[in-house]
Amino acid sequence: MERVNYAQLIEDILTRHSVNDINNGIEIQLIFDQKRHHYQVLNIGWQDQKRIYGVIIHVDLKGDKIWIQRDGTEK
Amino acid sequence: MERVNYAQLIEDILTRHSVNDINNGIEIQLIFDQKRHHYQVLNIGWQDQKRIYGVIIHVDLKGDKIWIQRDGTEK
Repeated sequence: MERVNYAQLIEDILTRHSVNDINNGIEIQLIFDQKRHHYQVLNIGWQDQKRIYGVIIHVDLKGDKIWIQRDGTEK
Repeated sequence: MERVNYAQLIEDILTRHSVNDINNGIEIQLIFDQKRHHYQVLNIGWQDQKRIYGVIIHVDLKGDKIWIQRDGTEK
């Protein structure tokens, strides 16, 4: 049986998420550290002179375990 | 003249910063995305049943420009 590539899976899901959310000048940024296995999506920018900076999702891979460090996708 | 390797320089500085700050069960996490040139230091953990999650520094490299997206090192 094929072993699941968690790292690739996480990257695919987060990348898909970032595409869906792009709008009005706010940058959706992906930060993937493949060496340390930290995966983050955040939004950065300015809206009406107000600073926008927030981590949307942050997932870590520790061995075969997926740690959800932050999940701001549910309101 | 030798060209400055900004990416390496940023990684070195942030790594040094993270070492100085380690204490009491809070993880100082480095997220370096060398492909997209995003560099972040954050702290994650629990302190007396309170969730700790905060971006300390976030630097982007865009061409030859260094963008400080977040600087929580000055109080």
